[in-house]
Amino acid sequence: MAPRWKWKGAEPKALAEPISQTISELRSSLIQSKASGFLSSCNILLAVEPERAELLDHGCFGRPIVSADKEKRWFQLSLEEAFFLFYNLKCIKISIQDRFLENETEVWRIMESKKPNFPIYYKAYSHLRSKNWIVRSGLQYGVDFVAYRHHPSLVHSEYAVLVQSGDGDGNGGNFRLRVWSDIHSAVRLCGSVAKTLLVLYVSGDGKGEDLSSCLENYTVEEQTITRWSPEQSRENETSNQNRAMQEQ
Amino acid sequence: MAPRWKWKGAEPKALAEPISQTISELRSSLIQSKASGFLSSCNILLAVEPERAELLDHGCFGRPIVSADKEKRWFQLSLEEAFFLFYNLKCIKISIQDRFLENETEVWRIMESKKPNFPIYYKAYSHLRSKNWIVRSGLQYGVDFVAYRHHPSLVHSEYAVLVQSGDGDGNGGNFRLRVWSDIHSAVRLCGSVAKTLLVLYVSGDGKGEDLSSCLENYTVEEQTITRWSPEQSRENETSNQNRAMQEQ
Repeated sequence: MAPRWKWKGAEPKALAEPISQTISELRSSLIQSKASGFLSSCNILLAVEPERAELLDHGCFGRPIVSADKEKRWFQLSLEEAFFLFYNLKCIKISIQDRFLENETEVWRIMESKKPNFPIYYKAYSHLRSKNWIVRSGLQYGVDFVAYRHHPSLVHSEYAVLVQSGDGDGNGGNFRLRVWSDIHSAVRLCGSVAKTLLVLYVSGDGKGEDLSSCLENYTVEEQTITRWSPEQSRENETSNQNRAMQEQ
Repeated sequence: MAPRWKWKGAEPKALAEPISQTISELRSSLIQSKASGFLSSCNILLAVEPERAELLDHGCFGRPIVSADKEKRWFQLSLEEAFFLFYNLKCIKISIQDRFLENETEVWRIMESKKPNFPIYYKAYSHLRSKNWIVRSGLQYGVDFVAYRHHPSLVHSEYAVLVQSGDGDGNGGNFRLRVWSDIHSAVRLCGSVAKTLLVLYVSGDGKGEDLSSCLENYTVEEQTITRWSPEQSRENETSNQNRAMQEQ
């Protein structure tokens, strides 16, 4: 399925401003400002100056929170988003109860204690982010994430992402796609909102000496599931072209 | 959600021909013709005379099969449909490899061997059929059944039905609605096709001295799941009426 750009000039605009560049600018700016977020329930709250708020929005990290604070703008980051900024981009710090956490493994463990399937979800999130996809919550489509080729103001999301853990233990979010009715439901829903269902199978035990080898221990297998329509596939290209010409 | 009739005169037509009456006519006619179906893979094939084919269509049992047979018309019945005609309505016989099965329990066991979750699905199917709902496969919506108030030529299906077994052992079709993403997916899909998600929780061990007590041993609990929209619920009825009047 081709990307669905939201307006006529959106594609050239996207090509002129690659996501990698936006992320790089955001990273430098956050490092410079010594940005730091703190854990609040299952989120990380981060306050930044207006120009950095704009960069966070360009990179699609977190959701802005309305507050009375005039000098700072507040963002609510998911655990995956915050850990990506903290660990992959190394551009924010994270504190818990006014104590900064320097140790990456400690942050990892705390996040895992808040959300048991955090390691699997983080691996999936960072896998897509590392390929410069914009990744947002898939809540409204009944999936784990949605993935955009570029900023959501320019393009509709292309993939509805379900994260499955390879060990099949069914912890947390992995009770999906076990039966045909669920697969039919997911594929039908994705079709009706013009997305492709992307299943990320994360496997491995996530064990290792340090966090880096622990994360490398996980592997991600990508599968897309789409409907196969016999009507669209039974004729060869020539006769399809003929028909298309007749219909014009 | 109100029933969505397919055309203007559909509702009075439906009222004039209640489903219970159609089923009763079908039953008498099939008994009279000594109709019998035979097991073929996971279906029952049934051949009937044209006038009975029309009654089967009115009652929405099975799907017609194209065949060269000019005097008989062939129908493919699901196991649930066939067992309902055989056991609840007692209007067809069932044979396997040219041998008629008189014993109800034997038919039950054979169907269970073909489809392990047959008892749960049959309980759900017959529960709805006994209340004069028309029940068809929910395959294309990623659910187990869809339920119609009357014949599908008159009205759109109102309920998308998921069958869950109360013991939570996850056998067969019960790996649904375990996680939020699946519930969101099912509710969103139902919303987009204007159906209400109806979950039938079938519980009990299905044990008993005979088939009748075994079926009575199962209980069916009905739950509908719908989206709650804060915007639609926050104002009282008076102001909603005012707004409706302003919009006219």
